Amino acid sequence: MLSGRTSVRTAILLALAALLLAVAPARAEDGYDLWLRYRPLEAPAQRVYRASAAELVAPAQRSPTLEAARAELERGLSGLLDRSVREGANVSQGGAIVFGTPTSSPAIAALNLDLSTLGNEGYLIRSVRIGGRRATIIAANADIGVLYGAFAYLRLVQTRASVADLDIASTPRVQRRILNHWDNLDGTMERGYSGHSIFDWHRYPDWVDQRITDYARANASIGINGAVVTNVAASAISLTPEFIAKAAALADRLRPYGIRLYLTARFSAPLELGAVDTADPLDPRVRAWWKAKADEIYRAIPDFGGFLVKANSEGQPGPQDYRRTHADGANMMAEALAPHGGIVMWRAFVYQAENRRDRHMQAYDEFVPLDGRFLPNVTVQVKNGAIDFQPREPFHPLFGALPKTPTMIEFQITKEYLGLATNMAFLAPMWEEALDTDTRVADNATVARVVDGSVFPYALTGMAGVANVGTDRNWSGSHFDQANWYAFGRLAWDHDLASRAIAEEWARMTFTNDPAFITPVVGMMMGSREAVVNYMTPLGLGHLMATGHHYGPGPWVSELARPEWNPVYYHRADRAGIGFDRTATGSNAVSQYAPPVAAEYRDIARTPEKVLLWFHHVPWDRRMASGRTLWDELVVKYSQGVSDVAAMRATWTGLRGRIDDARYEQVATFLAIQEREAQWWRDACLAYFQTFAQRPYPDGYAPPPHPVEYYKAIRSRFVPGDPGDTAAPFRGG
Amino acid sequence: MLSGRTSVRTAILLALAALLLAVAPARAEDGYDLWLRYRPLEAPAQRVYRASAAELVAPAQRSPTLEAARAELERGLSGLLDRSVREGANVSQGGAIVFGTPTSSPAIAALNLDLSTLGNEGYLIRSVRIGGRRATIIAANADIGVLYGAFAYLRLVQTRASVADLDIASTPRVQRRILNHWDNLDGTMERGYSGHSIFDWHRYPDWVDQRITDYARANASIGINGAVVTNVAASAISLTPEFIAKAAALADRLRPYGIRLYLTARFSAPLELGAVDTADPLDPRVRAWWKAKADEIYRAIPDFGGFLVKANSEGQPGPQDYRRTHADGANMMAEALAPHGGIVMWRAFVYQAENRRDRHMQAYDEFVPLDGRFLPNVTVQVKNGAIDFQPREPFHPLFGALPKTPTMIEFQITKEYLGLATNMAFLAPMWEEALDTDTRVADNATVARVVDGSVFPYALTGMAGVANVGTDRNWSGSHFDQANWYAFGRLAWDHDLASRAIAEEWARMTFTNDPAFITPVVGMMMGSREAVVNYMTPLGLGHLMATGHHYGPGPWVSELARPEWNPVYYHRADRAGIGFDRTATGSNAVSQYAPPVAAEYRDIARTPEKVLLWFHHVPWDRRMASGRTLWDELVVKYSQGVSDVAAMRATWTGLRGRIDDARYEQVATFLAIQEREAQWWRDACLAYFQTFAQRPYPDGYAPPPHPVEYYKAIRSRFVPGDPGDTAAPFRGG
Repeated sequence: MLSGRTSVRTAILLALAALLLAVAPARAEDGYDLWLRYRPLEAPAQRVYRASAAELVAPAQRSPTLEAARAELERGLSGLLDRSVREGANVSQGGAIVFGTPTSSPAIAALNLDLSTLGNEGYLIRSVRIGGRRATIIAANADIGVLYGAFAYLRLVQTRASVADLDIASTPRVQRRILNHWDNLDGTMERGYSGHSIFDWHRYPDWVDQRITDYARANASIGINGAVVTNVAASAISLTPEFIAKAAALADRLRPYGIRLYLTARFSAPLELGAVDTADPLDPRVRAWWKAKADEIYRAIPDFGGFLVKANSEGQPGPQDYRRTHADGANMMAEALAPHGGIVMWRAFVYQAENRRDRHMQAYDEFVPLDGRFLPNVTVQVKNGAIDFQPREPFHPLFGALPKTPTMIEFQITKEYLGLATNMAFLAPMWEEALDTDTRVADNATVARVVDGSVFPYALTGMAGVANVGTDRNWSGSHFDQANWYAFGRLAWDHDLASRAIAEEWARMTFTNDPAFITPVVGMMMGSREAVVNYMTPLGLGHLMATGHHYGPGPWVSELARPEWNPVYYHRADRAGIGFDRTATGSNAVSQYAPPVAAEYRDIARTPEKVLLWFHHVPWDRRMASGRTLWDELVVKYSQGVSDVAAMRATWTGLRGRIDDARYEQVATFLAIQEREAQWWRDACLAYFQTFAQRPYPDGYAPPPHPVEYYKAIRSRFVPGDPGDTAAPFRGG
Repeated sequence: MLSGRTSVRTAILLALAALLLAVAPARAEDGYDLWLRYRPLEAPAQRVYRASAAELVAPAQRSPTLEAARAELERGLSGLLDRSVREGANVSQGGAIVFGTPTSSPAIAALNLDLSTLGNEGYLIRSVRIGGRRATIIAANADIGVLYGAFAYLRLVQTRASVADLDIASTPRVQRRILNHWDNLDGTMERGYSGHSIFDWHRYPDWVDQRITDYARANASIGINGAVVTNVAASAISLTPEFIAKAAALADRLRPYGIRLYLTARFSAPLELGAVDTADPLDPRVRAWWKAKADEIYRAIPDFGGFLVKANSEGQPGPQDYRRTHADGANMMAEALAPHGGIVMWRAFVYQAENRRDRHMQAYDEFVPLDGRFLPNVTVQVKNGAIDFQPREPFHPLFGALPKTPTMIEFQITKEYLGLATNMAFLAPMWEEALDTDTRVADNATVARVVDGSVFPYALTGMAGVANVGTDRNWSGSHFDQANWYAFGRLAWDHDLASRAIAEEWARMTFTNDPAFITPVVGMMMGSREAVVNYMTPLGLGHLMATGHHYGPGPWVSELARPEWNPVYYHRADRAGIGFDRTATGSNAVSQYAPPVAAEYRDIARTPEKVLLWFHHVPWDRRMASGRTLWDELVVKYSQGVSDVAAMRATWTGLRGRIDDARYEQVATFLAIQEREAQWWRDACLAYFQTFAQRPYPDGYAPPPHPVEYYKAIRSRFVPGDPGDTAAPFRGG
C-alpha cells in the first residue's frame, strides 16, 4: 500500500501528514533536524527525483559506517520522496542507487572504477548504466567516503540540483576537520550560547543519549572528522581512568560517523593528579607518565585523535613554568602519542603574565624561533587573527612564517565577539576573507594554501572551529547560527567553496527552496557579518567589548590588571586621533609580515581602510577615500551598521508565511534584539570616542541620545557563556 | 475528507502515521509530551470515545484561559480520537462537549447549575442532555476552573475511564500549589538533574520560548497554580528593574494557565543594591525600600504571587543579623505586599552558625515562640521532616505546633537525596506517608489536615514542591521522574488521592493502557522509594550521603566544619550501637511532638522500626521484630534494597516491546546504574558500620567485597546539581 504512486494517495498522505503535525505542536519546527531536514519535496520535483531514486542497492556485508550510509539514504529519500524506498541486492529497475566500496560491494567492484585520486575520505558519485538500467553509484575507497557521498547525494536532492548525468569526485582539502568544544566537565560551556554541554559526563559510560548520534550525523554530513570534547581551559580530571572510560563510550558512538575523539591535556596533569612532583617536560618521570597515559587512553580508544593544548596562556600551566619551550612541551606529548598515530595540536594563542610591547606580536615571537623543532605529529593551531576572534582582523602573521611546522587555522564558530546567538552574523565571508588573503611568502601563498600544505609540504593539515553546539533544541541557540556550523564544515572540506554558495545550500536545506525566500535570505546572510563589523568595530578597530562576558560595548574600559585586557590598549583614542600604530613608529608589528604585506600595512596610504586603525594611529581629520574626515567616516560606518540591521529586519518581515511560524518568529525577535544592540554599540562607542574627537556629527547623523556616562553605567549580569560570572555557589536548599 | 470515519481510512491514517514517525527518528518518543501524550486510541476505544466527543461547544467570547481550554481539548481530542474535532456554537449532535462559565457561555448559563461549592478553581463535569442531545458539560465559576476541567476530561479519555453518566465536582484542598525552582539567574540549577534552567533570563523580556508555554500547560494539567522561578539561595539582582521586566514577560506567558509568578527575596537586597546602608527590618528606610519595590513589581506583574524567603539559614542573610526575629523580617515584606494581595512564604528551614544541641529541634525552637506574631499574609514553609528531605524522616514537629500561623508543607521533587535522576524512586508514597501521619494535636489532626486548614482555621494554605524541571528534552532527567512532578501536583490538589492511583493514572497517560505493562510498572513505582530507603538509610538512619553533591555514600564523613554537616553526627555509631538518642537521655527532641506522639517515640518498644535509629541509640544485639539482632537486621535491610532494584530491573526487562524502544532503553540503562549504585551504598555503609559492630554477617549475606578504605577513597567529580563543584572559571579561550 505504501508504495502507491497515485496522486490521490499522495494527496491523502500529505494531508494526513499535515494533520499529524498540526495536532501535535510539540512536533512543530524546532530546528532539531538542522540542515538534514528531509521534508517531502513539492509534487513536481517529487516525480523527477523518484525516477532517479527508485531503489537502494547496499553492500550485503555492512560495517557500522556503511550501515549509517544506508540508514541515512533510507531516511533521507523516504522523507524527501515521501514513500518507503525499496532495497535490493541488485539493480532490478531503472533509477537504482548503488553504494559501497569495491571490497564491500560486488556491484561497485564490477564497475572497475578508478578511485585512485579519492584517497581515504573522498567519494565518487556517477550516473551509470548497470545491466542496461539507469543507476547512480556512490563509491569510495573507504566506508567513510561512502557515507560522505551519501550525504552529498542527499544534498543534491535537498537543494533541487540535477541528479542526471552526475560525475562528481570530491576529496577534502585538509586532513583534520575538527570542532573544538569549550565544554567543561560540569556541563557548563565557556562562550556557549546554546544551553548546556551536549556531553553528559555524569551518565557516561552507561548512557549516551541519541543526541550524540544526531550530532555525529550532522558533523559527518559536512565532513567534520574530529571533535575535541573538553575545554582548552582543561581539567586534569578528564585524564583520570574514570573519565577515560567515559570518553571511550562517547568515542564508540562517534566512530561509525568517521569522527575521532580528541581531548584537551592540562599540562600540569601529572602534578595535579599526584603522580609526580613536577610537570617539567624534560623530567623522565613526567615523560613516562604521559607515555603511560597515552597507552592507557589508546587501550580504551584505539582511534583516539590526540591532544589539544593551551599552555602558558591566560593562566594555564605550560612548559615555560619550567623554563622549557613550547616545543619541549609539545614534543613530550607527541612522543607519547606517536606510536599510536595520535597528534598534538599546540595552540599559538599565547600571552604571558609579563606585558609585551604588543600582544599582537607575541605568538610570532615565541613560535618562529621554534620552527623545525617540533616532532612530525605536532601541529600549531593558530587563530585566524593575531588578537582574538574579533569581527575583523588582518590575518595572523604566523601563517607563512612556519615553513617547517604544520600550521592549522582555528576559527570561532560560537559568536563570543559577534553578538552571541541573538545577533545574526553569517561567518563564512569572514573565514573566506582570511583564507583567501595572500601571505606573499611565495607565489599564490594564500592562508588557505599555507594551511592545506600547498605552500610548504606539511605532512599534517587541518582546520579547527570552536563549536557553537549545545543542548538547545535548535543546537546553536538560534536558527541562523546553525549556518555557521554548516559553513565551517563545508569550508574545512573545500576552502575554495564560495561563502555565498554555502549560504544558499544551507538555506535551501534548512528552510525551503522557494526562490522568493532564498534570494533575500542569502543576501541578508552575506551582508550580516559586515553589519556587525560596522556597528561594533569599523575601520580596523577591535577589542572594544565589555569585560568578562564580552556582551555589549566597553571601549572606555581601562582599569583591568593587564594592559592588553583593556579596550583602551587597542583603540588608543586621544585628542589627536585613534588607532594602534603598529608601524616602525609604534610596535612595528607589521614587520612580522612578509615584506610585500608589511610594505602595504606600513603605508597608511596603501593600508586598506577596513583595517586602517589596526595598524595606524590616524588623525581625526584625515581624509578617507569617501572624502569624509575619519571622524565623520567613523560616524557613518557605525550608523551604517545599525541601518543594515534595520534593513535585515524589514527583509525578514517580508518573508512571513514563507516558512513555518515557529522559526520565523524566533528569527524576527532576535533581529529586533540585534537592532537594539546595534544601536547600543553605535551610540556608546560614538559617545565615548566623541570625548576625544570633540567634533560635530555630520549632517543627517544623530548624536547618541545619552552622554557617555549613561553607557558606562550599563552593567549586564548573568550573560551566557561567561566563565567569570557564575551565580555564587551556595550549599543546600 | 479528514472527518472520514471508515475503518479503512483509519487504518490508512494509522499506517501512514507510523510511516511518518518511522522516517523521522528525530520525532521518536523523547518524553517531551510528558503525560499530555495524545496518541491515537486503540480502535475499539476509538469508537466509544468518538461517540461522546463528537463536537466542541466553546464560549464565543474567550479569555486567554478559555482559549487555552479550547485549544487543549482540540489538541487532545483530535490526537486521541485521531480526527479533527468539529467546533460549533450550539449543540448540533449527540456527543457534544460544552464548556465555559455561566458568564462566558450561554449554553452553560441556560443549565442553571449550582456551582456554589466549586469556589474559584473547582470544576464540574457532568453528562446532560441539551435539546434532547447527549452532551458533557465542563463548567466552573471562573475560567481557570474550566481549564482544569478540560484537562480532567482529557485524563478520563487518556486513562480509558468511562465518560458516560459523569457527575464529577472537584475543588483543590489547598490554595497555593507551588513549584519552587532552585534555579540561578545564570541558568545553573541547584540540585537540578535535568540539564539547564528552563528560564532563559538573558533573552527575557524579548524572547520567551515555546517551552515555557508547554511548562505552563503541564502545570495547569495537574492544578499547580504558582511558580517560584528563582533560587531560595537568592540573588538581589532578581529585584533590579531590569530583571523585574524580564520576570514580567515570563509571568505574561504563565498567566493564561492560572500560574502566578513568585520570586525569592534576598533579605539583604536593599543593602546589596546600594539603596540603604542596612537591611534591618525595623529601619524605616528599609521598610520604605521594600514597599517601593513591591509597588514596582506589581506595576509590572499585577498578579505577582509574592516572596519566598530563606533567611538566617546556611549563610543566607536575615533579620537575626540585626537581632530581629523571623516575624520582624517576614512582616516587613508582608506589609509591602499586602496592599497588592501578595504573600510571604517564610521558610522554617533554618539552622544557625552556632551549633545547637540538636539541629532537629532548631526550627521548632525558633518558630513556636513567634506563633501569632506573623501578619495574615505570611505563611511558614516547613519541610516534611525536621532535617532535610531524607529518603525517610518522621514528620516535622512544627506541623500542629503553630495554631495561629498558616503552615505550608515543602516537599522535594528533585531527588537530591534519593539517587538523582538515574535512580527510580516514585515519591508519592513518601509524601503520602508524611501527609497521613497524625500529629495528635487534636482529633484527626493529620499533617495534611493541619496544612489544609482543617485543624486550625488557616486563612492561607498551600503545598510547595522543589521542582525537578530542566531543559532536558524529557524535562526531568529521566522518564520516571516525570511521575514525581505529576504526583506532586495531583496531591497538592487533593491529598486524599492514593499514591497508587496516581501512579496508575500517570503510567497510563505517559506510556500505554496495556494492563500487561501497567500492573507491573505500578508495582515497581510503588516499591521504588522503599528500595531506596533500604539501600541508603534503613531503620531510621539518615544523612549518610557524600559531601557537597550528596551523590553516593559517605557515612564516615566527620571532618566538616560544622558538626551537623557530618553524617557521624546523625548515625552516632560506636562499639555499643547506632542511632541518635532524641529521648530525654539525649537531645529530647521527642518532647517537641504532641504528648501521645512523644510518648510513642520516647519508648524504644513502641517506636516504629522504620524510624527506630532516628530516635534511639540502639545496641547492636537488640532483638528486632524479625527476631534478628539489629546488626543482622541492618545487613538484611541494606541487602533487601539491592535485591529490590534487581527485581525492578528484571520486571522492566520483561516489558521490552510493550512501549517504544527509545524510552524503554533509557529506563533499562538507568535501572542498571541504580542497581550498581544500590550495591555501592549497601557495601560502603555495611563495611563502615561493621568497623563498629564487629559482628559476622548473617548466613547467606555476603560481606562487602572491599574494605571500608576502598569506599572512602571513591571521589565523584562534577556531579550535576552540586552548587559547590563548578569547573574552575577561566577567562577567554
